Amino acid sequence: MTTLRIAGGQVLRPDMTVERADVLVDQDEGEILAVGAANDLPDADETLDANDGLVIPGLVNAHCHAAMTLLRGYADDKPLESWLREDIWPVEGELTPQDIRAGTELALLEMIQSGTTGFADMYFHVEKVAEAVENAGLRARLGHGVVTIGRDEATAREDFETSLEIAAEFDGTADGRISTAVMPHSLTTVGEEYLREYVPETRELGVPLHYHANETEDEVTPIVEERDERPLEYARDMDMTGANDFVAHGVHLNETEIDLLAETGTGVIHCPASNMKLASGMAPVQAMLDAGVTVGLGTDGAASNNDLDMFGEMRDAAMLGKLAADDASAVDAESVVRMVTKGSANALGFDSGRIEEGANADLAVIDLSASHLTPRHDLVSHLAYAARGSDVKHTICDGSVLMEDREVLVMDEASVRATADIAATSVVERATR
Amino acid sequence: MTTLRIAGGQVLRPDMTVERADVLVDQDEGEILAVGAANDLPDADETLDANDGLVIPGLVNAHCHAAMTLLRGYADDKPLESWLREDIWPVEGELTPQDIRAGTELALLEMIQSGTTGFADMYFHVEKVAEAVENAGLRARLGHGVVTIGRDEATAREDFETSLEIAAEFDGTADGRISTAVMPHSLTTVGEEYLREYVPETRELGVPLHYHANETEDEVTPIVEERDERPLEYARDMDMTGANDFVAHGVHLNETEIDLLAETGTGVIHCPASNMKLASGMAPVQAMLDAGVTVGLGTDGAASNNDLDMFGEMRDAAMLGKLAADDASAVDAESVVRMVTKGSANALGFDSGRIEEGANADLAVIDLSASHLTPRHDLVSHLAYAARGSDVKHTICDGSVLMEDREVLVMDEASVRATADIAATSVVERATR
Repeated sequence: MTTLRIAGGQVLRPDMTVERADVLVDQDEGEILAVGAANDLPDADETLDANDGLVIPGLVNAHCHAAMTLLRGYADDKPLESWLREDIWPVEGELTPQDIRAGTELALLEMIQSGTTGFADMYFHVEKVAEAVENAGLRARLGHGVVTIGRDEATAREDFETSLEIAAEFDGTADGRISTAVMPHSLTTVGEEYLREYVPETRELGVPLHYHANETEDEVTPIVEERDERPLEYARDMDMTGANDFVAHGVHLNETEIDLLAETGTGVIHCPASNMKLASGMAPVQAMLDAGVTVGLGTDGAASNNDLDMFGEMRDAAMLGKLAADDASAVDAESVVRMVTKGSANALGFDSGRIEEGANADLAVIDLSASHLTPRHDLVSHLAYAARGSDVKHTICDGSVLMEDREVLVMDEASVRATADIAATSVVERATR
Repeated sequence: MTTLRIAGGQVLRPDMTVERADVLVDQDEGEILAVGAANDLPDADETLDANDGLVIPGLVNAHCHAAMTLLRGYADDKPLESWLREDIWPVEGELTPQDIRAGTELALLEMIQSGTTGFADMYFHVEKVAEAVENAGLRARLGHGVVTIGRDEATAREDFETSLEIAAEFDGTADGRISTAVMPHSLTTVGEEYLREYVPETRELGVPLHYHANETEDEVTPIVEERDERPLEYARDMDMTGANDFVAHGVHLNETEIDLLAETGTGVIHCPASNMKLASGMAPVQAMLDAGVTVGLGTDGAASNNDLDMFGEMRDAAMLGKLAADDASAVDAESVVRMVTKGSANALGFDSGRIEEGANADLAVIDLSASHLTPRHDLVSHLAYAARGSDVKHTICDGSVLMEDREVLVMDEASVRATADIAATSVVERATR
């Protein structure tokens, strides 16, 4: 057994207390062996310095489209529908598998540099996403996004079948770091006939479902008008709301839907920055937490964010949650730290998001010696409101050190940036010529 | 004449275009001498490397209470009234002049590290704030905050007179880097009788007025009920709305007030993070911009933010502005970059916020070689949505280099942090024992 000791720091425990402790990791199994006073722990093969640092669970970005980093800043300040139709989809139509690999690697680099160790990704050419994840050492639940609306039946069926094949092929790969889900894009972009056919096949395969739900009024009204029921009631009828399933956004929810999400155990991935930037609305996050819904956090794609920094997402979630509830005590610091760790991890079915014996050794160490983290009245507050991705000193996933003293060990940073730059310029040229 | 050339970078021009150029600075006068191609400019005494960088106007934090960095993270997730009464005011009552010096220095350190070169500050023991600003090399408009409500007449008069004395004493000091304003706290915490007496004295002195206005409904309703007019109509009646005056927040404004602000040239300092964190509401920023109001950006105190990073404030302003307008095209990237540069500078009467010949040489250089700033479809978008304070490489104010390659040259960082840490712990102990 090869062991790693993260030594000299303070540690954020699952109950949101902070204590002076070392963390001992079994690198072969990728698990936390023990958390305790330095003197109480056995020697380790290697040591990572966490002096003047705070050891936290690696952050989990529970809804993103990683390769969209290529479109960061390409088309801002537009509403969802015209943004997708006029800008994003035309460019996405030109993306080659190599582009997707390049964009995903840029995303993984940014994640590692900002303390994110796990994510869920909905995109296409998932084999390229999986390659990048396998090499970079992160944990991910991957899926192929299915759209059937506006397509002929053969193409639509092929798309759904691809989602099932990809889910079967990659689940459990990369030493178990990669898991999968079947990912119909949304309840309005995938036809009922396809859901009736393929959701049962998904259940047979035994992987979760992940889809966009209730992001804008345009994802609610047509369903209510056609079916006289709310979108998540329709989803329940389709057997799409289960304890392993998770939906993205959940902005426009009524009480019945919130209760339904809580009762079925369906996770909701809140994407506050994207919801603000696209003016989609304010999700009722405190109401969901009160009802017992599992709430995680996600950045959505970098084109509607425009970064993948989960510290920013915590802050945005707290800020927006207070406005949505018209109550400054709503969605407090502890709540958002829970959401980005345990909440996201539970929604995705990861055994991470908490620092205790037996959990996955997915960790980040924050350097506390910064002016914006001074003084130190409350470190949980600092995580929620003042820290940012650039404060992360070390990133560890599955027991392996991915970044040490801000040096990324698993990728060549300059080469990843240069390759992404070229791919981004070239795809926009192809799409707009 | 000593000259400095900022060489090899791209430059953000006042029209929001970006061009490859060098910037030549007269360090004695603290002014920009020229902006142009390297070959067209004369040699300089010193050179600052801006390769792979973007030169931008130094950011201006147009409303803050700098010393409140001591209370960063001390009491989060509470509404404005109870937060002030139960947590903030009791601690502020214990602050010594030395504490205020320590908290202000911590704030200035954070500002320099995040590319902020100018700010407006409302606090007390302003002589200590001025000392810190003089030493740190920043530009500031300083004032003593006046409260008369709940005080006997002698104390109230003394407080207003202090504000006038401080304004007279420090205006134009520190080689002109320090200017002042008289700062009645708000229209509900300062009595009409005092405004009637001291506003004319302020006009005689020739300094601007700065006060909180329409931050919450509680700052609107009592005035409307008592006077049957809106707060800013009352302010106009008191001669408090002029082209040099600026108000903080302006969240709950009606159309009449927006027009009044535009017509009088009164600046509004939008504080999006504070407004969200205290659930104060959503300011009608796009409506103000459409009406021609001068809008700047501010962090407010670090206790309701919780940092002083103006990049975060730009992002928050764009995000919140879209939600407030229910329109993703509202408060776009260019608008927020203008607000944090020209908007704030104009509101405060600084001759900065733009990179052109004759303007103050208050500048920051952003390091563009970061994963979260890759690719580079649009650098203005990156400023608004993806860059953060930690991307600032050099900070220059009044022609002097305050930070070079992230090393702060004008303060001892470790000592400033240690002193602030001790002061913060000690003041909370005194307030809560």
